[in-house]
Formats: sequence, C-alpha cells, structure tokens
Amino acid sequence: MKPYLEMNREELLKEKEGLEQEFARIKALALDLNLTRGKPSPQQLDLSMDMYDIISSKSVLRTQAGTDCRNYGSLDGIDEAKRLMAGFMDCEQEQVIVHGNASLSIMYDTISRSMTHGVLGHTPWCRLDSVKFLCPVPGYDRHFAITEHFGIEMINIPVYKDGPDMDMVEQLVNGDAAVKGIWCVPKYSNPQGITYSDETVRRFAALKPAAGDFRIFWDNAYAVHDLYENDRDELLPIMKECAKAGNPDMVYEFCSTSKVTFSGAGISAMGMSETNRNDMLKQMAIQTIGHDKIKQWTHTRYLKDMDGVRAHMAKHAAIVRPKFETVHSILSEEISPRGVGTWIKPKGGYFICFEALEGCAKAIVAKAKEAGIELTAAGAPFPYGTDPKDSVIRIAPTFPDLEEMKQAAQVFTVCVRLASIEKILGGK
Amino acid sequence: MKPYLEMNREELLKEKEGLEQEFARIKALALDLNLTRGKPSPQQLDLSMDMYDIISSKSVLRTQAGTDCRNYGSLDGIDEAKRLMAGFMDCEQEQVIVHGNASLSIMYDTISRSMTHGVLGHTPWCRLDSVKFLCPVPGYDRHFAITEHFGIEMINIPVYKDGPDMDMVEQLVNGDAAVKGIWCVPKYSNPQGITYSDETVRRFAALKPAAGDFRIFWDNAYAVHDLYENDRDELLPIMKECAKAGNPDMVYEFCSTSKVTFSGAGISAMGMSETNRNDMLKQMAIQTIGHDKIKQWTHTRYLKDMDGVRAHMAKHAAIVRPKFETVHSILSEEISPRGVGTWIKPKGGYFICFEALEGCAKAIVAKAKEAGIELTAAGAPFPYGTDPKDSVIRIAPTFPDLEEMKQAAQVFTVCVRLASIEKILGGK
Repeated sequence: MKPYLEMNREELLKEKEGLEQEFARIKALALDLNLTRGKPSPQQLDLSMDMYDIISSKSVLRTQAGTDCRNYGSLDGIDEAKRLMAGFMDCEQEQVIVHGNASLSIMYDTISRSMTHGVLGHTPWCRLDSVKFLCPVPGYDRHFAITEHFGIEMINIPVYKDGPDMDMVEQLVNGDAAVKGIWCVPKYSNPQGITYSDETVRRFAALKPAAGDFRIFWDNAYAVHDLYENDRDELLPIMKECAKAGNPDMVYEFCSTSKVTFSGAGISAMGMSETNRNDMLKQMAIQTIGHDKIKQWTHTRYLKDMDGVRAHMAKHAAIVRPKFETVHSILSEEISPRGVGTWIKPKGGYFICFEALEGCAKAIVAKAKEAGIELTAAGAPFPYGTDPKDSVIRIAPTFPDLEEMKQAAQVFTVCVRLASIEKILGGK
Repeated sequence: MKPYLEMNREELLKEKEGLEQEFARIKALALDLNLTRGKPSPQQLDLSMDMYDIISSKSVLRTQAGTDCRNYGSLDGIDEAKRLMAGFMDCEQEQVIVHGNASLSIMYDTISRSMTHGVLGHTPWCRLDSVKFLCPVPGYDRHFAITEHFGIEMINIPVYKDGPDMDMVEQLVNGDAAVKGIWCVPKYSNPQGITYSDETVRRFAALKPAAGDFRIFWDNAYAVHDLYENDRDELLPIMKECAKAGNPDMVYEFCSTSKVTFSGAGISAMGMSETNRNDMLKQMAIQTIGHDKIKQWTHTRYLKDMDGVRAHMAKHAAIVRPKFETVHSILSEEISPRGVGTWIKPKGGYFICFEALEGCAKAIVAKAKEAGIELTAAGAPFPYGTDPKDSVIRIAPTFPDLEEMKQAAQVFTVCVRLASIEKILGGK
C-alpha cells in the first residue's frame, strides 16, 4: 500500500474507482449505526444493576452520623459520599460538595453564579465588558456550549500529547485579566484521550493569573476510566499541586459516577478549596435544600471505596477495551499505510479522536451519513462548532456492540479514503 | 377566662405571676423540641419505603416508548413521569418538564435564566434598572431568599382568606412594567394554609401585565396534601384559566413529590405553555443532558396515577391530621378565650400560621427558645425577614411525634400568654 500523497493522478483515480464501488456496495446494506455520543452500552449499564439489590423497604437509610437520607438537609452531601468522591479527585473529604445527577450542571451553575454574583467578591462577570475563556481544542462540545450561552469569548488553545500549549496558556492567563477560566479534561481527554503530564499539571498550578477570579475548570470526567488495569495514565492531583504552589483557590474540580454506575442517574461532585467551598455553599443554600441523599447512600454502599470503584471499572474495561482495540486496529490497517489520518491510541476514556487531512472532516462525516453511519458533526469539538482545519472527527466506540463497531469502523475507513482522494485530486 | 385586653393592670399582673411560675416549671424540664421546618416525620417517610421493593437487579428500566432509563437523554423527562406530574397540576402532559429532586431548584434556575438571558426574547433582567416581584405575605421564606439573592425588589402583598389582595396585585402588575413576577403558594399556602378562591384564580388569569415578561410563579407545593379526604380545598387549574383568558404564557407552575415520597429524593416538575416550554428547554439543553430517569421510572411505577397519589396521601393525612388537630385544639382552648392570637385551621399543607398581638412575635419565639422549643424565626415568612407588625409565627406540626407536638403546643401557649401580657403591660 502506498500513501495517497505519494500517488500520481492515475493511481489516485484508480483507487477512487475501487472505493466508489465499495461505497456503493456499503450503501446498499442500508446500515443504521450511531457513533455520535459517549454513552455506555446497555451491557455496561447491566454491570451496576445489582446496586438496586442493596436497597429495599427494609433498608435503614441513615448515614453513620445518623442523618435520615429520606428527609431534607445536608446541603453539601452525606459524609460517606464526600469521602467516596474525594477518592475520585485525590483530595480531602472536607473539600468536596456532592451534587445531583450531573457534573455538567455543576459547571453550568458555577459559570452562571460567576456571571450574576461574581467569584469571592470580584465583580460579577455580567458587568464586565469582556470575559474570556481558554478552550483547549479539540475539547468537549458541552463545555463550549456553556461559555457560548453566557456570551463568553472563547480562545482556542492547541492540545499536544502532554496537554494544552502551556506557553500560550501562561501568556494569556498571566497577561490578560479578562481571561477568567479554562476548560480542561485532564485525563483521557475528550476527545483525544490524552492525559496531562506532570509538567503540564505543575505549570497549571503555578499560573499567576492577572485576574483574581481566574479559575481552572478541571473536569476529571474520566478519572477512573482506565482501559488497561496495568497500564493506567496517572494524573497529578491538581488541588494538591495548586495548594503547594500557593494557589489553593485557583481550581474547581468536577467528577461523577455517570459512566461508573448510570448515566444521568449517578452522583456528581465538585472539589475545591475551603474558601471556594464556602462561597459556593452560600449560593447553593438559596438554590436547593440539598441533593438526593438516598442516591448518595445507595452509591456509597455499592461502590464502597476506591478499591470498589477500580474493581467495578475493570468490568467496564473488559467490555469497552475490545471496541477501542478494534477501531485502533482497523484504522492502523486501513488508514496508517495510506497516510490519510492520525489518532492517539487512548488508554482510557470514551473517545478516539481521528485527525484527517486538512479540509476533509466535513466531507467524511457527510459520506459516513450517506453510508448509514452517524458521526458527531465535524467541528463539534471546537468553540462555535468551527474546526479551523476541518480535520477532527470524534469517534465514540462504547455504545454500539463489538460487531457493529467493527462494521462501522470499516465503513468509516472507506469514507476517509474516498474523501481524502477527492481532496487530493481537487488540489492537483 | 377573660380576654387579656379586657383585664385591668392588677388582673394582668396576677395572671403574669402564675404564668411565670409555669414558665419556670417548664424550663426545668429542659425540653428540646424543634418546630422550625416543614419536614415529614420518619413515620411518613416509612410510608414510601416499599417503593424500593419494585426496583431490583431484575428490573427492566425502560419506558413504554423503549427509552433506557439508565442512559443519557430525555431532557424533558420520560412520558410516564410527565403524565403523572401533569395530574398534580391538572394540565396536559405536553406542558410538563420533569426535573430533578427539588422544585425549589427549578424556581431558582428560572429566575437565574431570566436574569442572564431574559424571558422569550425580552431584555435580560440583569440589564434593567429595576426588577420587582410581588410577595404575598406571609409567604415561603425560600421564595423570598431567591428574589433577594438576585437583587430583585420585593413588594409585600397582604393575603386574606381567599388569597392575595387582588386589587393591589392588579394595580401593580397592570401598572408597572418593572413588576416581573409574583410568588404564589395557591393551595394550603405556606404558612397560612389558605387556598385561593376561584375568583382569585380568575383574577390572576385575567391580569393585563404592563411587562410582557411578567410571570406568575405558581408553586403548587401542596396540591395533593389534603388532611381531610372528604373536605378538600379545590383549586382552579391556573394554566387552563390563563389559557381561557388569552394569557397562556403568563404562568409557570411548579410541583414535586418531596412530601409525597421522600424529601429531597423525589421528582419535581414544571408546567407551562408550549412557548414557555420551548424557551426553557433551549436553556436546559445547555445545563444538563437530562434528569434522573431511574427515579422517574421508580416514582411512576410506584405512584401510578392520581388515584394512586390520593391513596398514598390519605396515609400521610392519617399521620399528620392528629398533629394539626392537637395544635388547633390547644390553641383554641388556651389562646382564643384570652384573645391573644388568631390562626386559620388549615385543611391541608404543612403549617399553621399563628398571628399574635402586634409586636409580640419575636418575644414569643425568644421565650419558646428559652423553654427549649425551637420556632421558625419571627419575620422569616416575610421578604428581608421583616414582619412589619412583628406578629406572625409559623408552626410546623408534621415532624415531631404527637406527644411532643402536644407538649410543644402547650409550652407555646404559655409563651404567647406571657409575651402578650408583657406587651399589654408595657403599653399601659
């Protein structure tokens, strides 16, 4: 096999003809596969069903401290749940607030509160002429949707194998008081699957922001979502690093059990300094009497501690790993030798991030749709939905079953090859 | 027994002496009772524990439409839950959005969204010089806390037996474009226990607001919380009345199962016009992927429909009714003949609202505290915590057991009598 970029026009046309025949054959299959969302598969959800065997009419739904989980109260969550979620974030129990069913809502509420009431006495962002957020790209579309919703200006920051471009981050954060935050998915990042290096985390912790209300939004969504038990990425605990660097208030950390137990029916949490925590609780006291403590009780009884979580996640990995490896091996076989795309083989998380030749992503997604494969819209992992190079495609391998995933990946490679050839020919 | 206001100074001094002895005797008992919060008792919470027998590892957590309740999605809730909650609000299933564990959070989020993004294209409230809310008083402290938190000016509206002073409401709403909303607890109101008359509801529905983004915040918290199965207050359905009057968009209705199943671990919902609903969903899509559908599944399987809800609430009533009646009968015996306080005997809800002689509420609460009875702070049911007459005390009879409630009520009457005499003597 020859890289497409080394082929002459004739060779490309011949290759194209074969691919078009293949594409027509695929279309005739009338496939209907969906690779758009990072959702666990039903098989993964089955793993946690026995959580509902530990609660019944006979259960005594009390905490160790004696709180009745069935009644109002406990604004910051029950101690057992704080302890569990502290394990996800490698921080102290006292730094945790346990929330409802989604960490996304905590992030939204945190931004919303900063807009209307400001951070620790600083001017509410809604009264400022300019508020900016740094957005490592490609990133999580729902992060960018929140900042866009509030009219916050978003600045793209390239992400490399060891994390965001820290020179750029330092320059912008330390130099511009309008920069109020940065979105980070530091472990098995969405969508690239990379984990921030120790050096990157330490540079984050050592930032000297021009804005006193600058915050790192550290969305540790995949903290425990390792694919390989003996080859995990290790992420330095940001809260500890920030404290060491004399910046304890600079970071908010988020996590949840959405992809541990049930998506949208788990528990979520936020970790932060005592000062930030008190600030947040003041506002939370107006918004709610407290989150669902019965669900906190059930989750902590079920998962127990980080050993319990790791053991449970190993079961997820056994289901998910073959899907990731299938995609990786099909791409390695079909794409690499032809030189029309790159990706990082992730060791965890929920995505594989395919980087096509420049200007090909939209065309690939369109072709895949024609062939019955729904892919996340090209551009989605970028602020304002705009991928400047039109090259990134997020693949979510978890939801389909293994056979479907295999088929979808094969079809995908045909689409990539065809769109790439068309692009190359168009440029010749 | 003679009304205190008809007693001469000597009679009052003699009465006071006797009461002081009684008060000293009570203090020696070192009681520790809490009547502050409208919380269900453990016995009430026990009623719903069998909900957890209908879910186990064997459950198929799917909706009738086939949605997997364990996975992401269904921003507006599952159909079954929309149908159930529509029953609470006497509206159409299509008008409902099912939320998380607390209607309070929906109200907070609705105000917050109006501040930052405005209502249906109107100017966001944070950009206006003046935003006002009407607050029927006494009312629910947490409502007023929300509007205070956002710097919204609150205007007291007196509440009579059939609802708020509608002349005043009409004048303010129809005449002042800065008036953007009104807080209402229309059935078994917190704290008075009154229910708005048909006439009141119709006058609400017929408002002609000066502000296009004026909304009635109709917190139907006690929609199904009747104490007497055969003597229920009936509330006209506001959404239907607003639609009839040509004002379909003017109302947001809220409800929850917090005091039906578990407090803080139930489901909540909002009812509104299609136009409002679409507006709200646009913002919600940024804030969350969806609320907890497993809890929606469990609740709808358990409560089934409004017949199921009514049957379940009858069990609550059997526990709560004697407590209300005890308070009522002790007050009737000890307070009425002495003319030092009035209250309405509620047919449902969670509170009895005691109206003392003017200028006595704080003194009564202080005395009760001295005697080991924690009462809601005087003034709490008013915006900014200020009761202009210092006369209203909210009594929450549900949480203590019947014997405790009896004892607390008796101690309360001693405190009322003593504070009243001191007040009368002070004025003579």
